[in-house]
Amino acid sequence: MSEHEKYLKRTFELAEKGRGYTSPNPVVGAVIVRDGAIISEGWHQLFGAEHAEVMALKAAGERARSATLYVNLEPCCFHGKTPPCTDAIIEAGIAEVVIATLDPNPRVNGAGVQRLESAGIKVVHGITADQARQLNRGFFKLVTDKRPWMTLKLALTIDGFIADVTGKSKWITGELSRNFVHQQRQQHDAVLVGLGTLFKDDPTLLPDDHAGYIPYRMVIDEDLHIPFRMNLISDQFHTRTIVLTGSGANQAKIREFAARGIKVVAAPKDEFGWINLPELFRILGEMGVTSVYCEGGSQLAGSLLMTKLVDEIQLFIAPKILGEGLRAFSGLMQTLDTALQVRWEEVRQLESDLLLRGRLS
Amino acid sequence: MSEHEKYLKRTFELAEKGRGYTSPNPVVGAVIVRDGAIISEGWHQLFGAEHAEVMALKAAGERARSATLYVNLEPCCFHGKTPPCTDAIIEAGIAEVVIATLDPNPRVNGAGVQRLESAGIKVVHGITADQARQLNRGFFKLVTDKRPWMTLKLALTIDGFIADVTGKSKWITGELSRNFVHQQRQQHDAVLVGLGTLFKDDPTLLPDDHAGYIPYRMVIDEDLHIPFRMNLISDQFHTRTIVLTGSGANQAKIREFAARGIKVVAAPKDEFGWINLPELFRILGEMGVTSVYCEGGSQLAGSLLMTKLVDEIQLFIAPKILGEGLRAFSGLMQTLDTALQVRWEEVRQLESDLLLRGRLS
Repeated sequence: MSEHEKYLKRTFELAEKGRGYTSPNPVVGAVIVRDGAIISEGWHQLFGAEHAEVMALKAAGERARSATLYVNLEPCCFHGKTPPCTDAIIEAGIAEVVIATLDPNPRVNGAGVQRLESAGIKVVHGITADQARQLNRGFFKLVTDKRPWMTLKLALTIDGFIADVTGKSKWITGELSRNFVHQQRQQHDAVLVGLGTLFKDDPTLLPDDHAGYIPYRMVIDEDLHIPFRMNLISDQFHTRTIVLTGSGANQAKIREFAARGIKVVAAPKDEFGWINLPELFRILGEMGVTSVYCEGGSQLAGSLLMTKLVDEIQLFIAPKILGEGLRAFSGLMQTLDTALQVRWEEVRQLESDLLLRGRLS
Repeated sequence: MSEHEKYLKRTFELAEKGRGYTSPNPVVGAVIVRDGAIISEGWHQLFGAEHAEVMALKAAGERARSATLYVNLEPCCFHGKTPPCTDAIIEAGIAEVVIATLDPNPRVNGAGVQRLESAGIKVVHGITADQARQLNRGFFKLVTDKRPWMTLKLALTIDGFIADVTGKSKWITGELSRNFVHQQRQQHDAVLVGLGTLFKDDPTLLPDDHAGYIPYRMVIDEDLHIPFRMNLISDQFHTRTIVLTGSGANQAKIREFAARGIKVVAAPKDEFGWINLPELFRILGEMGVTSVYCEGGSQLAGSLLMTKLVDEIQLFIAPKILGEGLRAFSGLMQTLDTALQVRWEEVRQLESDLLLRGRLS
């Protein structure tokens, strides 16, 4: 690993500290290096708060003069919630800036680099760019496609079932897989399930770590059928719940939810009474949701695949054979020629389960 | 790796040269080492032919005196098709014998070691024993359970389908996976399919390498419905085909098959007219078949799992999603509490497919 890679990797670690709190902003980490040593660090801690670069510059003070700044994303060059980072970098007398990847936001996207260079600062960018984009895949997705990054999670038996014939799915996978899922919830802005799964399992959709960041918990409920007694509506984290409904939903009912602190978001329905999912995800994007972790069920998973809204799939394959059971997807029927294709990105053993992560292409 | 392990590993390689030709005998390799160098090698080449130890001893001649013999399986100590290897070893003046694993055959099983020791030869055994048993898992299975080792192969989509809704299964998996299957055919004494698969695909069940060992090709055909025009009956390797039928099968039809060089093996049927699979496999064991590679279809695969006849499962998971299609197993229905359990032994990427190998427990 080169020096540049080493320090950029550190910016990734710092960026992760802000995970969950910065959306729709990206997570960003910055380190300032002088004479082969890190003299200060910073990260974007909260949406609206100071940027990583500014935090690191403040911590370095006068020592930033002639030093090198590392950052995982191109510094901003416009006045948003905070002044442009490029100005702060120039003012601090930084000699060189090493950037993992350019900012896809059209208001930056190379303009930050230009601003720094025209002030006589040496700029290097494009090192570990893939990892940097992966780190902020939700932010990149939202800027590029105007919708959140969608990760679809499935816990399956070897023969492709998500529950047995009695409907039982607790637990197909082992504890390590379930822990991994809990961590993934904290890696996304929102966790999403269909109404069927809500009725069946009454899940809390919380990460294990209740003290840390709690993602939005979303359920698709076309006609606001969800009873108030369910965990998502009644537990202590209910203000983190968003009910996704159809645009014709009963206004009195919406007010009842609002009175309980539950947000309701409405999207147009199609001619069959189902929510138009691409439209719903466009709306979620406008709300600043950069990433969604969908945990089923089969109807929602099938519809998301059909409408090409899935970016990543996480399969937990349990070493079990059922023969019959509930299938992973419904409402989807392809032939071998039209099958949806996945490109594997990771294969990992989690106790006796296998985790397969792949990208939909 | 120790010296002992190094030379035993060489015996495994030599043993593999006999693969396919030695059943129901095991594959065996032997090396003779003197002053830190291999002076001769041998392997069991063909059922009934001389044993690996004898081949190596002959090649070493007088130089075998005071040398060390390595062999993957305990030398035999009884008169079978050939005289006992223990006598040949003692006569040659071997000073030390290093054995990977004891022979499970009750006529040997430690008696070979005793015979050598009582002649003043130093014997070491139990090094790399697991690999040695894996090398001859068919032989061990047959000796221990009186039936062949059964490997079940499945090519599946992510969502667990072996064909799309039109019945098409060519090709779910990629070329590398299919090559692997061809190699596996040569690693087993027999390849087996159900009649449905035969009618649908008219497969040859041959390995790519037609010049090498050709396994038995078996099809289960309760009532001898298979037409003579099918590849298994009519191609140049038809004498390697065995039709497995019910014990009440038409004798005239059996003679017709025999006249074409096709062997028919009959096993008792159950009250529903299906062949009693445990009984069939006991009969195959008696015939000296030590291992079977089953390639489907879903009916046969389900029945084999139901009757607990599957030892190993090889899953080729293609990176495809169909939504609907033909399921992997039929006639099998378990709940999560009674699900069949697999213990993963290997996970490997084959181009864009994943190969998961596991042991049924």
